[in-house]
Amino acid sequence: MDILRRVAELRGEGRDVVSLCAGEPGGGAPTGVSAAAAALHSSGAPLTYTPALGIAGLRRAVAGHYRRWYGIEVPPENVAITTGSSGAFMLLFLSSFNPGDRVALARPGYPAYRNILGALGIEVVELDCGPATRYQPTAELLDAAVREHGPLAGLMLASPANPTGTMVTRAELAELAAWCARGGARLISDEIYHGITYPGAGAEDPRGVCAWELDRDAVVISSFSKYWGMTGWRLGWAIVPDDLLPVVDALAGNVALCPPAPAQYAAIEAFTEESYAEAEAFVEEFARTRSTLLDNLGRLGWGRAAPADGAFYLYADLGDELEGFADSAEYCSALLEGAGVALVPGGDFDAEGGRTAVRLSFAAGSAAVAEAVERIVRFQADRRR
Amino acid sequence: MDILRRVAELRGEGRDVVSLCAGEPGGGAPTGVSAAAAALHSSGAPLTYTPALGIAGLRRAVAGHYRRWYGIEVPPENVAITTGSSGAFMLLFLSSFNPGDRVALARPGYPAYRNILGALGIEVVELDCGPATRYQPTAELLDAAVREHGPLAGLMLASPANPTGTMVTRAELAELAAWCARGGARLISDEIYHGITYPGAGAEDPRGVCAWELDRDAVVISSFSKYWGMTGWRLGWAIVPDDLLPVVDALAGNVALCPPAPAQYAAIEAFTEESYAEAEAFVEEFARTRSTLLDNLGRLGWGRAAPADGAFYLYADLGDELEGFADSAEYCSALLEGAGVALVPGGDFDAEGGRTAVRLSFAAGSAAVAEAVERIVRFQADRRR
Repeated sequence: MDILRRVAELRGEGRDVVSLCAGEPGGGAPTGVSAAAAALHSSGAPLTYTPALGIAGLRRAVAGHYRRWYGIEVPPENVAITTGSSGAFMLLFLSSFNPGDRVALARPGYPAYRNILGALGIEVVELDCGPATRYQPTAELLDAAVREHGPLAGLMLASPANPTGTMVTRAELAELAAWCARGGARLISDEIYHGITYPGAGAEDPRGVCAWELDRDAVVISSFSKYWGMTGWRLGWAIVPDDLLPVVDALAGNVALCPPAPAQYAAIEAFTEESYAEAEAFVEEFARTRSTLLDNLGRLGWGRAAPADGAFYLYADLGDELEGFADSAEYCSALLEGAGVALVPGGDFDAEGGRTAVRLSFAAGSAAVAEAVERIVRFQADRRR
Repeated sequence: MDILRRVAELRGEGRDVVSLCAGEPGGGAPTGVSAAAAALHSSGAPLTYTPALGIAGLRRAVAGHYRRWYGIEVPPENVAITTGSSGAFMLLFLSSFNPGDRVALARPGYPAYRNILGALGIEVVELDCGPATRYQPTAELLDAAVREHGPLAGLMLASPANPTGTMVTRAELAELAAWCARGGARLISDEIYHGITYPGAGAEDPRGVCAWELDRDAVVISSFSKYWGMTGWRLGWAIVPDDLLPVVDALAGNVALCPPAPAQYAAIEAFTEESYAEAEAFVEEFARTRSTLLDNLGRLGWGRAAPADGAFYLYADLGDELEGFADSAEYCSALLEGAGVALVPGGDFDAEGGRTAVRLSFAAGSAAVAEAVERIVRFQADRRR
């Protein structure tokens, strides 16, 4: 956040800053969704409250998406439309856990999980996930966490993950779901980056494995923000297991009344052939930008990078280039001031191991990434002189 | 909620149901706001995340609204734009209180306060507020609550209130604020119905007193939903005291990332002369509908009604008309089945005293209210035969 403020300040002073910080695509919503929203607002429809769990047509459309992508039947009654995935996290954490419960999650990981859980009085157990497990939880790590901290009420999983971009395989997800079933822990699967993936030819689950393919006791959380580029619209959803439906139903209206109504009506248009095609074109552009970045990674002279299976992040250790800096936050600050390139220091995602790492978002596009690489190379070379 | 489901079922069967349940105006947003939203979506602007506390232009516009209505200077930095007032409650409850804290509120009252606080592990202390205090808290009731339960961390106040419509005067609000200051309790003032008021000539605070006129340690919560008729847009705000700003700032992005972006850009148009004029026209229509209802109240033969100072609710005891029914929920159910009129039973707002009361919303307009009155009179007369 300090970095983002400084970027705004520097730009305000007229400096040309290349920011690879933003965790969001910049292309905007599918054309059909924007057109539907424009027509809705032009019509003068009053846009009053909708049902707390969303309009029936959108819940059905989301269910159809699961048929299309994963070949599974999700009853529309189990689809809860939410105010972004943030709204889904709040609602499902409140529904699934009590203050004092223990919930495990990967470190490095998305800081909002930790912060929301903490604000709700839930004890966060961080699993130290490194390159050996592709930065993802395993049954062994969970067993060790239980030995150290006591029983877990839940496991928060993200695949593709933020900041690492790594994904779990079908076998790995099955193992984690089985572990949760044995231990009475609720699996919460964050799948907001599904579809933004870079699979090899013949990959078994090219868009990611959905937890509901394997375990209908799991909570699945997703969103219109990433694949469909609708971050500012604040619309997401949760797939809610049967046993949680009554509490989610009772709580949803209190927590949020309803998700934004205009976004709900318009988002039905996200599931047309045209909208899927537009979203896929953005994924192809992310893939090209990712290649640009990976092709140039050697020139940066950094250390190990996490395998960027999905999302639009590269999480890399700075290696020898950290020399002379206390940590990656200091490196990022110097890089921003000296070369006008903004990266997120790894400490935001991992207070321990992240002190030597950075996250690059390649959502900003090929030109921005190429320019950032040249500036970083020059910045590092100048320091060595 | 059972009543709302049954209304939907009956309408699905082709029954003509007059519903006085909805706590929302049906007129829609000001023309300029809808036009701005339509133009924004037509433009193809990408609508990405905004700052977590909202766009600067809207925070300034809200500050201007406080200058216009109350003649006070609110620094735009103290304005937090939120996802409806629901988002403000969640954010400010989390920022102000800890699990185990005790927060007082009026009974009867809006059930979501109680339910959100309860979900966050905060102990709710209900103040038994009756006609003697216009259904509003007083220092005496707070003193008694402290004697019975122990110290309070907060007081949740609503004026105009839901379901009673009653308002506190400037002197009463000052007394409550002083009590909170003495006792170290945070005053949270829900002012979402400000401006929807029915003052007599020469009233000192015709739109309601804003807590920040008296106490800048209070949290003020408001919304675009009611006065501007934008319920489905999910946009509100909080005025945040200086000492809470750092924690609100740190928490907001985790809880919600940002309020809906299209609504934020469009809502700047809510503060034009044209939009205020349109909103005032709706308030005048509410006033006419309220007169229709009050003029006919005698014909209903009910008991005492709360003074409907503001909002669009009448909260009334059924008096002798409850005879033969176990409680007002049973009366409401029979009225809906027998006469096709939907009212909300008072038990939703007050599990104890509300068992004999009902809430009528006159947001549905004069024609609906007039028709409902005729049907209720007939339903009650038929029962006596």
